[in-house]
Amino acid sequence: MSTSSAAQEPSPLLFFQTINAHQRTEALKAAIELEVFTAIGEGNTTVPAIANRCQTAERGGRILCDYLTIMGMLTKNGNEYALTVDSATFLDTRSPAYLGGIIGFLNTPELLEGFRNMTEAVRKGGTAVDNEGTVKPDNPIWVKFARAMAPMMMMPSQMIAKLVDPNADRKLKILDIAAGHGLFGIAFAKNNPQAEIHAVDWKAVLEVAKENAQKAGVAERYHTIEGSAFDVEFGSGYDLVLITNFLHHFDPQMNETLLRKVHAALADGGRAATLEFVPNEDRVTPPDTAQFSMVMLVGTPSGDAYTFAELEKMFANAGFSRSTLHPLTPTIQQVVISEK
Amino acid sequence: MSTSSAAQEPSPLLFFQTINAHQRTEALKAAIELEVFTAIGEGNTTVPAIANRCQTAERGGRILCDYLTIMGMLTKNGNEYALTVDSATFLDTRSPAYLGGIIGFLNTPELLEGFRNMTEAVRKGGTAVDNEGTVKPDNPIWVKFARAMAPMMMMPSQMIAKLVDPNADRKLKILDIAAGHGLFGIAFAKNNPQAEIHAVDWKAVLEVAKENAQKAGVAERYHTIEGSAFDVEFGSGYDLVLITNFLHHFDPQMNETLLRKVHAALADGGRAATLEFVPNEDRVTPPDTAQFSMVMLVGTPSGDAYTFAELEKMFANAGFSRSTLHPLTPTIQQVVISEK
Repeated sequence: MSTSSAAQEPSPLLFFQTINAHQRTEALKAAIELEVFTAIGEGNTTVPAIANRCQTAERGGRILCDYLTIMGMLTKNGNEYALTVDSATFLDTRSPAYLGGIIGFLNTPELLEGFRNMTEAVRKGGTAVDNEGTVKPDNPIWVKFARAMAPMMMMPSQMIAKLVDPNADRKLKILDIAAGHGLFGIAFAKNNPQAEIHAVDWKAVLEVAKENAQKAGVAERYHTIEGSAFDVEFGSGYDLVLITNFLHHFDPQMNETLLRKVHAALADGGRAATLEFVPNEDRVTPPDTAQFSMVMLVGTPSGDAYTFAELEKMFANAGFSRSTLHPLTPTIQQVVISEK
Repeated sequence: MSTSSAAQEPSPLLFFQTINAHQRTEALKAAIELEVFTAIGEGNTTVPAIANRCQTAERGGRILCDYLTIMGMLTKNGNEYALTVDSATFLDTRSPAYLGGIIGFLNTPELLEGFRNMTEAVRKGGTAVDNEGTVKPDNPIWVKFARAMAPMMMMPSQMIAKLVDPNADRKLKILDIAAGHGLFGIAFAKNNPQAEIHAVDWKAVLEVAKENAQKAGVAERYHTIEGSAFDVEFGSGYDLVLITNFLHHFDPQMNETLLRKVHAALADGGRAATLEFVPNEDRVTPPDTAQFSMVMLVGTPSGDAYTFAELEKMFANAGFSRSTLHPLTPTIQQVVISEK
């Protein structure tokens, strides 16, 4: 075989680690459900204290905490466990950056079913769950998504507002397509007091976005348009259209149809800001970005993680004059800014 | 919190990688089922060739191969994929060291159910699948196990025979407890022409062991004892008792009961050789060894990955005079040799 090398002894370790990788996911979910990280953060650092706080058997608590330590999510010193910086920040329910709630979305049977039917999805070249997977109209999964994923999008939404509207000194009429939790539009509204947001999504999802706009104190500048982005009237004269985590669900042709509609809704000199997982042209780097392709294979009929060249072409075909790519470090996503 | 450090920025990356880790398992299973590694090993190195050989959509084949590349199981150069040394050795069906068949065991719904009920297992302190999990009498899972896991045990079985019977120059009457595929006893029989093996396991499982003894050319020196190791008559005068991957299913008290029976079956000067996952006293190192505890939590009522101190105590309580610990590098398991 072309890759064999006399210097390297074959090892089955990566095979075993990968075939058992699902155990790590289950252990993390169990720890979140049982509030193990919160318990330890509160000062319950030994097995008896953790088991008592989390209402588990001591044996179960001990084996789970050891497993979390092996995974690098806790540290262990003698009989005492402690949170890592990352666990304290993202997994203790008392932290403002708590992310554990996203298991409410990731645990959705429909999503899991997609992954469990991966072989069939590879054969078909698209989701094996049903004909439309997660992109089915009014799929209630997106209400769960809007509620569960908001904390995860807090940082990227603030970063994208600063990137696209750094001076925040002009009136901005903004269309937020498939707004979901609404955080992206809301971040622009908080960043710029002259920004007016028009959010498009399914009716039930927009209720979540409106709640979040209320909490953020921008409800007066938050307007909604109910329905599919492919069907509704956007209106016109927008300075900015936000297309966040949306294009990856569809094939290039559907995206071009949408982008032509976006182009028509923009004022002269207007821009579209697209948040996506944009892998390099090799499609295997950066790894955490590139692997999002698989999420689309198992969950949608024809979605993908598009390269910048592919996105650039869709925008050009829809009439945009120029697109530029911007990293959103430290997130694993990128922003494409496209000018009318 | 005690672990916080001003120097380290919190990152959610480990959280995301862990919550998505199950996708890696599904991708590896899909690739094995579709024979992607074999296809590439045969010279189908581009997406169209792989898709044609594996009967998949090109889109599905491309996304899967990119994902396998990201996981480190393939390499990609331009549009061509190649096997790594490890994949060529362990995942190409044409390789004598092919391990892919073990998904036949690991995919067992009963095993997967254990992992999917981890939260409940932690609460209970034992498997949530049913009262006995995988240790139920005559559980057909062990026939699957015997067929699927044999290739994985080829190397450890040869290593343990060389470790325990290095000179192979004397008659040895060997009892192989819970023989499964039979490979451990068979390795001793192949290593030493004067070794006679007496294998204990459920009747249906012993059929697999006998087939393997036949293939190995040691059927004449291969004898069987049908039933549970806790119930059957072992006979007596054994020079060696093999207890491979067995004690981890049970609690210390049950193990001591069994070990007393083993002690009684041994001739004077006889030894027990125990193959186990033996973590260090901290129970979190070595990581691949220590995490086996979780497999026992979700799959058995009271099994565990025991430390050497715990195993030593069980053997001492059962009457053994001395136990010693031996690594079985490069495997993630260890051998304990205990003298009568």
